Amino acid sequence: MEKNDGVTIVLFSGDMDKVMAAFNIAIGAAAAGKETSMFFTFWGIKAIQKGNLTGKSFFGRMMGLMNRGGINRIGPSRFNFGGIGRWMFKQMMKEHKISPLEELRQTAIDLGVKLLPCEMSMQVMEIKREHLIDGIEESCGVATMLEKAFRSKVTLFI
Amino acid sequence: MEKNDGVTIVLFSGDMDKVMAAFNIAIGAAAAGKETSMFFTFWGIKAIQKGNLTGKSFFGRMMGLMNRGGINRIGPSRFNFGGIGRWMFKQMMKEHKISPLEELRQTAIDLGVKLLPCEMSMQVMEIKREHLIDGIEESCGVATMLEKAFRSKVTLFI
Amino acid sequence: MEKNDGVTIVLFSGDMDKVMAAFNIAIGAAAAGKETSMFFTFWGIKAIQKGNLTGKSFFGRMMGLMNRGGINRIGPSRFNFGGIGRWMFKQMMKEHKISPLEELRQTAIDLGVKLLPCEMSMQVMEIKREHLIDGIEESCGVATMLEKAFRSKVTLFI
Repeated sequence: MEKNDGVTIVLFSGDMDKVMAAFNIAIGAAAAGKETSMFFTFWGIKAIQKGNLTGKSFFGRMMGLMNRGGINRIGPSRFNFGGIGRWMFKQMMKEHKISPLEELRQTAIDLGVKLLPCEMSMQVMEIKREHLIDGIEESCGVATMLEKAFRSKVTLFI
Repeated sequence: MEKNDGVTIVLFSGDMDKVMAAFNIAIGAAAAGKETSMFFTFWGIKAIQKGNLTGKSFFGRMMGLMNRGGINRIGPSRFNFGGIGRWMFKQMMKEHKISPLEELRQTAIDLGVKLLPCEMSMQVMEIKREHLIDGIEESCGVATMLEKAFRSKVTLFI
Repeated sequence: MEKNDGVTIVLFSGDMDKVMAAFNIAIGAAAAGKETSMFFTFWGIKAIQKGNLTGKSFFGRMMGLMNRGGINRIGPSRFNFGGIGRWMFKQMMKEHKISPLEELRQTAIDLGVKLLPCEMSMQVMEIKREHLIDGIEESCGVATMLEKAFRSKVTLFI
C-alpha cells in the first residue's frame, strides 16, 4: 500500500445506486494498491448493517417502492427520487433476488478496504456493534475520518 | 492555520441532513487547525439565509412533509427522498423545536470557517445580502471557490 | 495545462441542477488552465446522450413533473426531491425552452474538458456509442477515472 496517496470515501447516502458506486470506486482504488477507507455515516451506515443489503429488509422495500405506480412510472423517478431505476431492478431480478451489493462489499473487505462506522450515527440511530457486519473497524468520529482524508489524495462525499 | 492543506466544502444541497453533515465536517476540520471554507451554492445557500434553519421556515416545512403520510411512512423515504428521517425528527423534537443546525453553524463561524455565498445563486434565486446571516464573507463565484479548493487537501461536494 | 493539479468530476447524478453545477465547475477549472475531466456514470451518462438535454426528452419530462401538483407545490420538493425548483424552471422558460445545459456542455468541450463515458453504465443501460454526443472520449472504467483522479488536485463526486 502506498502512503499519503490513498482514497477516503464518506458514504452518507443509503441509496442503493450510490452505495454501489461507492463500493465500485473503493474496489478500484484498493485494486490499484491504494490505501482505501470508507466512512459510513448517516444513511450510509445501513450499508454495513447485518442483513441489510439482501432479503426483505432491502430488496423488499425497494419492491414496495417500485410497485406503487407500476414499473412504467419509474422513468421520472430518475429526476426527483434518489435514483433507483429500472435497469438496476432488472439487474437484481437477474441475480435471483440476491443483491450484488453484498458481493461488492465482501470484495472490498477482501482487498483490504477499511470500513469505518460513524460513532455518532450509530448512537443517534440506536445501532449497536452487533448489528453491524463482521470485518469492519472500530467506530470512530469525524476527526478520525478527516485524518484519513488528510492522508489521502482523493476524498469523496457520496 | 496551516496553508495549502485545508478543507473546501461545496454545499449544493439544501437537505437538512446534508447541511448538518457539511457543518460537522467543517467544524472537525477547523478544530484540527485546518483552513476551512464552505461555498454555498444552489439549494445550499438556504443554509445561510436568515431565519431559515429554525422556526416555521424550516421546521414547519419539515413537519408538513412528515405529516403527509404519517410518521410510519417515513421508512421508505430514506431510499427515494432526500433523506429526512425519523431519527432526525426525534432529535429535533428533543431540542424543543430549536434546530441544532443553527448552533452548528455558529460553532463553525466561531472556529473561523469561512462561509462564502455563491454570487450566481444569489442572483438567480433573488437573494440579497441582507437576507443572509451575519459573519459570512463576500459573495463570490466558481473561480474563487476553485482557488480555495486548489489550496486545499480535501474538497467535498455535498 | 498544468499537470498533476487538475480537476476530476465523477458525475453520477442525472438531476438537472447537479449536471449544471458539474459543468459550471468544470468550465471554471478549465478556464483557470487546469486539466479537467468529467466521468459520466450511472444517471450522469444521460448528460452526454444525444438530444437528452433539450426538447421533449428532458424539458418535457420536467414539465410533466412540474404539472403534477402545480407550481405552488414545488416548495417542499427542495427537501425531498432531487432539487428541480421554481427558479430553474423560470430560467428555462426565459430561455425559450432551450436548455442552457447544452451550451454549458459545449463550452466545456471547447475549453478542452475531457468527457469520459463510463463503460459499465453504458453496458447496463444499453447505451451505444452512437447514442452519445460527439466530441467525447472513449468509454472507460473506474480504473481510468481513478488514474485521472490521482493526477488531480480536486476530485468531486456529484
